[in-house]
Amino acid sequence: MSGHGILYGVGVGPGDSELVTLKAYRILQATRHVAYFAKQGKTGNARRIAGPHLREDHQTLRLEYPFTTEIPVDDADYQPAMDRFYDAAAARVARHLAAGQDVAVLCEGDPFFYGSYMYLHQRLARDFSSEIVPGVPGMSGCWALAGTPITQRDDVLTVLPGTLPAEALRRRLADSDAAVIMKVGRNLPAIRAALAEVGALERAILVERGTMPGERVVRLTELGDDRRVPYFSIVLVPGCRGLQ
Amino acid sequence: MSGHGILYGVGVGPGDSELVTLKAYRILQATRHVAYFAKQGKTGNARRIAGPHLREDHQTLRLEYPFTTEIPVDDADYQPAMDRFYDAAAARVARHLAAGQDVAVLCEGDPFFYGSYMYLHQRLARDFSSEIVPGVPGMSGCWALAGTPITQRDDVLTVLPGTLPAEALRRRLADSDAAVIMKVGRNLPAIRAALAEVGALERAILVERGTMPGERVVRLTELGDDRRVPYFSIVLVPGCRGLQ
Repeated sequence: MSGHGILYGVGVGPGDSELVTLKAYRILQATRHVAYFAKQGKTGNARRIAGPHLREDHQTLRLEYPFTTEIPVDDADYQPAMDRFYDAAAARVARHLAAGQDVAVLCEGDPFFYGSYMYLHQRLARDFSSEIVPGVPGMSGCWALAGTPITQRDDVLTVLPGTLPAEALRRRLADSDAAVIMKVGRNLPAIRAALAEVGALERAILVERGTMPGERVVRLTELGDDRRVPYFSIVLVPGCRGLQ
Repeated sequence: MSGHGILYGVGVGPGDSELVTLKAYRILQATRHVAYFAKQGKTGNARRIAGPHLREDHQTLRLEYPFTTEIPVDDADYQPAMDRFYDAAAARVARHLAAGQDVAVLCEGDPFFYGSYMYLHQRLARDFSSEIVPGVPGMSGCWALAGTPITQRDDVLTVLPGTLPAEALRRRLADSDAAVIMKVGRNLPAIRAALAEVGALERAILVERGTMPGERVVRLTELGDDRRVPYFSIVLVPGCRGLQ
C-alpha cells in the first residue's frame, strides 16, 4: 500500500459546523480531496456541515445517489442498484488513492453508525490504508438540543427504525428503559400508538432537523394528530429511572 | 437568571484530546471556571482529556467521588451517599453561577449519555441557564478504533450494561442486530456465555480503554478464558446484515 493515499472516514457531527472535532478539522485542512454523498438536487448534509471548513483549493468528489425519492429497502430493484452505485463511487475514490492522493470522505454524524461511508470502507479498506475519525452522532445532537438526558446508570437503550412492524416496535419499546426511534416520517402514527401502549408517550420528544437550520423540538403529546414530519426526524424516549 | 453565569455541560469525547469539538474547545477557551468529576487518587478521565486545552489561568473545581471502590448500585448505602455528594457538588458549582461566573463541566464522552453531568443538570438547570455541548460518545471511539461499522440500514442497536442477569442479557442480545455491552469487567464470563448462546460470539470485539493510553482491541474468541479486563471495557457486537 506504500505510495497509495489514505482513506479517511471523517465524522462531521449532527449538523452544526462547530460540532466537528479538532481532529476532523485538522484532517480536512490537510487533505485536498474531499468526497461526500448527496441526493440529486441537494447540497448533501455532510457537505453543508463541512462547508465553512473547506477552502477554494479543495477538490470535491460528489457521490450522487441514483434515486430522487426513497425506495423501500425491501424493493427487489433497490439493492442491486445501490450496489452498482457504491461500486462506482468506490472506484472513483480508489483512483485518487491509487494515485497517491489522500481522500477524506465527509460523513454526517458518525461514520460507522448508520452511515453510507461504510459501503465505501467495505470496498476499499482491504486495498488501502484507512482511518476513521468518529463524530458526534445525530442522536447526541438531538438530546442535547432537547435538554434531555437520555440514559444513566444501568439503563438499556434501544436504537430502532420507525419502519419496524407495529408489534415489533411495541415489544422492543416495552423492553427498553430508553429509546431512540429513527426514520420517523410517515411512521409517526404507528410509533405514537406503540409508545402509548407501553406507557412511554408522555415522555417522548420529537426532534426535527437536530442542530440544523429549521431545528424543532416538541413533545409528542403536543403534536397535532395530522401533523406531517420529515423522514429523518428522531423520537427520543428518555430513560425514566432515577430522574424523578 | 440575569446576572448569573451559564452552566455548560461540555462533552470532551472518548479519550483522545483531539476528539474534542470546535465548540467545546471555544467554550473552554472562553470559560475560566472548569469543573470535573474524579475518583479519589485519580486525575479524572474528563480532566485528562481536556488537559491540553486548559491554560494556567483556568480555575478548576475538582468534584471528587466519595468512594474509592465500586459499590453496587443496589447497595442500600449507595444512593443516599451519592445523592449527598451530588447535592454538595451542585452547591459548589451554584456558588460560581450565582456570582455571575460561567462554569464548564467537563464530561467524558457525551454529557447526556450515561454521564455524571446530568446529576448536576437536574439540580441546577431550573435556576440557571444551561447549554449542552454534545460530544463523541465512548462507544463511537471504540468502534472507530476497532475499524468495525456497528450499524447500518434498519439494524436495531441495543446498548446494555454487562451487569444484567444472564437471562436478560441473553434475551436482549437475541433480539438485537447489533449491541454495545458496557461495564464488562468481572461480568465477562456471563457476557461471553450469553453471546455464545445467541450465536454472536464470533463477531464480538472487546475494546479496553478506547482512544486512551493503553487502548486494546481483541476478538472475544481470541481472549483467554481467565483474562481479567477493566470494568469500563466495552464489548461491540457489530450488526451482521448486509456486510457479508
